Amino acid sequence: MRMTFVPSSFIRPAVSPPFDNLAILAPGLLGASLAMAVRERGLARRITVWARRPEVRQACAESKWCDAACTEPEEAARDTDFVVVCTPVSMIAALAARVAPACRDGAILTDVGSTKSLICREATAAMPDGRTFVGSHPMAGSEKTGMDHARADLFAGRNCFVTPLDDTQTNAVDRAVRFWRDTGMDVATVSPEEHDEIVAHISHLPHILASVLSSQLAGKPADWPHYAGNGLRDTTRVAAGGPGLWRDILEQNREESLRAIEGFEDELHRLKAALHNRHFATVKSILQRGKEFRDRLS
Amino acid sequence: MRMTFVPSSFIRPAVSPPFDNLAILAPGLLGASLAMAVRERGLARRITVWARRPEVRQACAESKWCDAACTEPEEAARDTDFVVVCTPVSMIAALAARVAPACRDGAILTDVGSTKSLICREATAAMPDGRTFVGSHPMAGSEKTGMDHARADLFAGRNCFVTPLDDTQTNAVDRAVRFWRDTGMDVATVSPEEHDEIVAHISHLPHILASVLSSQLAGKPADWPHYAGNGLRDTTRVAAGGPGLWRDILEQNREESLRAIEGFEDELHRLKAALHNRHFATVKSILQRGKEFRDRLS
Repeated sequence: MRMTFVPSSFIRPAVSPPFDNLAILAPGLLGASLAMAVRERGLARRITVWARRPEVRQACAESKWCDAACTEPEEAARDTDFVVVCTPVSMIAALAARVAPACRDGAILTDVGSTKSLICREATAAMPDGRTFVGSHPMAGSEKTGMDHARADLFAGRNCFVTPLDDTQTNAVDRAVRFWRDTGMDVATVSPEEHDEIVAHISHLPHILASVLSSQLAGKPADWPHYAGNGLRDTTRVAAGGPGLWRDILEQNREESLRAIEGFEDELHRLKAALHNRHFATVKSILQRGKEFRDRLS
Repeated sequence: MRMTFVPSSFIRPAVSPPFDNLAILAPGLLGASLAMAVRERGLARRITVWARRPEVRQACAESKWCDAACTEPEEAARDTDFVVVCTPVSMIAALAARVAPACRDGAILTDVGSTKSLICREATAAMPDGRTFVGSHPMAGSEKTGMDHARADLFAGRNCFVTPLDDTQTNAVDRAVRFWRDTGMDVATVSPEEHDEIVAHISHLPHILASVLSSQLAGKPADWPHYAGNGLRDTTRVAAGGPGLWRDILEQNREESLRAIEGFEDELHRLKAALHNRHFATVKSILQRGKEFRDRLS
């Protein structure tokens, strides 16, 4: 029986949580934060975890938010009705396919990957009967990674995409949406393709620009970073993110990222040509348009 | 007589401040913060101000850090031994030339402009006998502008460039360097040309990228900004700066800015080609090099 979610402080013993057995596969910053939020908000009766490294399993087993830390992903997923795959994007679809048979009939599998088209298509195609994959992308990452930075309120007030395919079961989509709302997130439901186009522009392109600028400046005299102000620090902050993770993200969202880069190159060329030709009214209009957009973000 | 600077809390009545009469022309964020720091640290006996707008003059006159708010710049500069021009870059050289004759013989004039080659050349050429222009660039700006955001500790721990020409009087350069150190800044002395090359890369280029990205995104669906995370917010923060101010900065530092843009385009093209050709090892190496640079900035 699925109950309407009630904030944990108001839960009475007789009220069941929305999920019974929930598994988190690969508890890094997002996975461990999610387990903490699930526990704090009473979103599942039992939380199991799979982590590859023994020291991570041990840390999980000693935490309040983990009831069992398993050495095999199938073991963590056994008899679960909700699984969240929190690995790097390149491993998500295969891992979801691998653990799905161990889940309870009717189980929902989701993920926290920053790309969606490939993952949703591959994971959905690999689901056995009675299991549904519903892609998710909670936008709560950080250039800080790992369980050490995890916190239960990581998701509160942040945005999450849920990305069903056309034929994904409505009931499963609704439950996934509800789950992320219950962690405190603002949820938007879009197709995987629309998701990938949006994040290519608002997340992957900013990352690319920060990384390329930082890589360019790495070739300049060694004393220049000393003169850097907060402007450069802010503009390049995301470039501190893991190169392996981001390589995978760009591989998975290659086409939309290339399109976003080309759109950027066009606009940069427009500013460069205006500056070159001393058309300072055009320079100012680009700066003005940029300012208006940025002011709306705040 | 010039005395060694002693922190204001230790000043005894008999110790003279480094400067006698100091003028701040155009007290915005930088100018008003500077006046506050000068007063708090006892760097001048008297502080006069010129502001174009009557309401700004009134606010200055009512503050603790201003002894006289004048309607004409010459009036504020009369009998001063140190003048700091805090206008937008396009007005600095002309204003320094205009007020120099009113200054005391031996006076030093400086500025807070983000570009230096044009300003230093023009202002120096316009100095009458007995007045020395020494260009400065305290890197303590913000996307927030105006006197309302001013604070005495704006400069503490930040970097400042002092940019003498080859034939600028050494004594004047030393006094300007000492002045900025006395406000709490870390001072580097470089040529105006070297300054402009450095800031084109570490300040103007990041601003250009933030503005161009924001301008590009301004043309996308109206709901996209809603999904933005902190990554996009940080990467674009400086794009909120004043378009008029930045148009002027780019006009003044046009050649170095164009060179910095071209260097960026080359590196972006390298990443784009690698992504296009599925050379993910190259993609990762650019991300890695960027991360190493960014980690050093922190």
